[in-house]
Amino acid sequence: MSDKKILGFIGTGVMGASMAGHLLEAGHEVHVYNRTKERALPLVERGAVWEDTPADIAAKCDVVFTIVGFPRDVEEVYLSKRGLVENARSGAVLVDMTTSSPKLARKIYAAGKKRGIGILDAPVTGGDRGAREATLTIFAGGDKEDFEKVLPYFEIMGRTIKHMGGAGDGQNAKLGNQIVIAGTMTGMCEALAFAKSCGLDLNEFIEAVGGGSAATWSLKNYGPRILKGDFAPGFFVKHYIKDMKLAEEAANEMELDLPALTVTRELYEELAEGGYEDSGTQALYCLYDPEEE
Amino acid sequence: MSDKKILGFIGTGVMGASMAGHLLEAGHEVHVYNRTKERALPLVERGAVWEDTPADIAAKCDVVFTIVGFPRDVEEVYLSKRGLVENARSGAVLVDMTTSSPKLARKIYAAGKKRGIGILDAPVTGGDRGAREATLTIFAGGDKEDFEKVLPYFEIMGRTIKHMGGAGDGQNAKLGNQIVIAGTMTGMCEALAFAKSCGLDLNEFIEAVGGGSAATWSLKNYGPRILKGDFAPGFFVKHYIKDMKLAEEAANEMELDLPALTVTRELYEELAEGGYEDSGTQALYCLYDPEEE
Repeated sequence: MSDKKILGFIGTGVMGASMAGHLLEAGHEVHVYNRTKERALPLVERGAVWEDTPADIAAKCDVVFTIVGFPRDVEEVYLSKRGLVENARSGAVLVDMTTSSPKLARKIYAAGKKRGIGILDAPVTGGDRGAREATLTIFAGGDKEDFEKVLPYFEIMGRTIKHMGGAGDGQNAKLGNQIVIAGTMTGMCEALAFAKSCGLDLNEFIEAVGGGSAATWSLKNYGPRILKGDFAPGFFVKHYIKDMKLAEEAANEMELDLPALTVTRELYEELAEGGYEDSGTQALYCLYDPEEE
Repeated sequence: MSDKKILGFIGTGVMGASMAGHLLEAGHEVHVYNRTKERALPLVERGAVWEDTPADIAAKCDVVFTIVGFPRDVEEVYLSKRGLVENARSGAVLVDMTTSSPKLARKIYAAGKKRGIGILDAPVTGGDRGAREATLTIFAGGDKEDFEKVLPYFEIMGRTIKHMGGAGDGQNAKLGNQIVIAGTMTGMCEALAFAKSCGLDLNEFIEAVGGGSAATWSLKNYGPRILKGDFAPGFFVKHYIKDMKLAEEAANEMELDLPALTVTRELYEELAEGGYEDSGTQALYCLYDPEEE
């Protein structure tokens, strides 16, 4: 293996395109694959090498990053016959940055271990903006040694990078993050709906409340968007529902009951059924305020 | 009325004692009353004038501040025969800083109006520390003209001072604040319980999660206390339950359903029944983690 490693990137959606772009800009050779080829072409124009299958990526790359949609996609990309684990080069490190199941992360890790391949789970927070500005938080799980091999690339894509523990612990930390957010989103939306019903000036309310012990990132960042009626994603409702289900599933396995998370997931499912699944998570406000379409 | 007004202060508990102390330090004549006289004596030693009843305070003071326990105490102090409204001097302004019912605030305002007395509702956030350091946020409701008369005193006790609207709107804003906090507390406690069950390092978890889109004042301030097993009040569980009930009551009157708030209130009631009513609100964590006593 030469000093200069060949990188792979699978999943060039909103997040992945920015992240792979940063690796390219840093001067790395990046091979890309995406289910919908068109969405990878801007990267190819900037010098990325297109590959027709995940197996081709696996065969040619020393470190492969993936950020795909759902755990079923992760399983397919990693564990199918034509997937990454089966076809990876010995000594390669495969890094899944999708928010996915901790259990699946441990399963992939075990499969990789058998073939002498390093596996990290390394989901991110910070959204499209964090991806674009390379300010993501990266929660990594897996062997410390593999983490250290990949750290220089993480530093190109993110700002706060933490090795949280063994396989699955990156996912565990990310799901914990999403549990905190369940609270910040319901608290914000219920409070804004309450304040509006009372006839308060909502800008004043956000300013008064946001400076004290009720201060949250969500209120500061989503509050003003809600007041403008801007419910565009940022972070999709449908993806957040997936994350909450993963968290509930993991909690259930540990016999841990999280009633506030469950209510939040139910509220978001009601929202999605109302046609908001492709809206941003701040659209939860619309459930409380029927004046918003 | 001379230029130098005589101030009254009723309710010299943890919050009130600090707040009245700041008024004294600023050189004002402050007359005090408290149900338990002993708790007012340190202020008397510093120059405050003790009065035996709220009616005596009303008869002697131009501006009266109150911060008592529950709405029933507010009602008693303001609306009973020997209460403030009945006995206040014409042109006086009475300011209730208790977190109480918006409906009751409007009732007191109307009773004051009939007698030519100014009434403000002006609950605060920032806790015992904010009271001590004069960094409280004060949410005021009532006539702008009365607000402006009292503003110089508010500025002695707090840092962020907002006139939120008419009578009751100070309470409405404060209850909105408490609704946001319902989310930050459940989100934090459920996430920490989840992270602990996963075996994550909780200090690392708080650091990793607290810097991004899940950042909250609660996680930053209460998180470390929870890790140390410090469940002392700050803000009492029993008082927070009162606030959430007031918010639900006000929401019900507006036919607004707040499911996440309701779950949070139920969780706190379960906590109180378990013997935590005099603990700080961060003790909610103990409901999820049976290892904590």
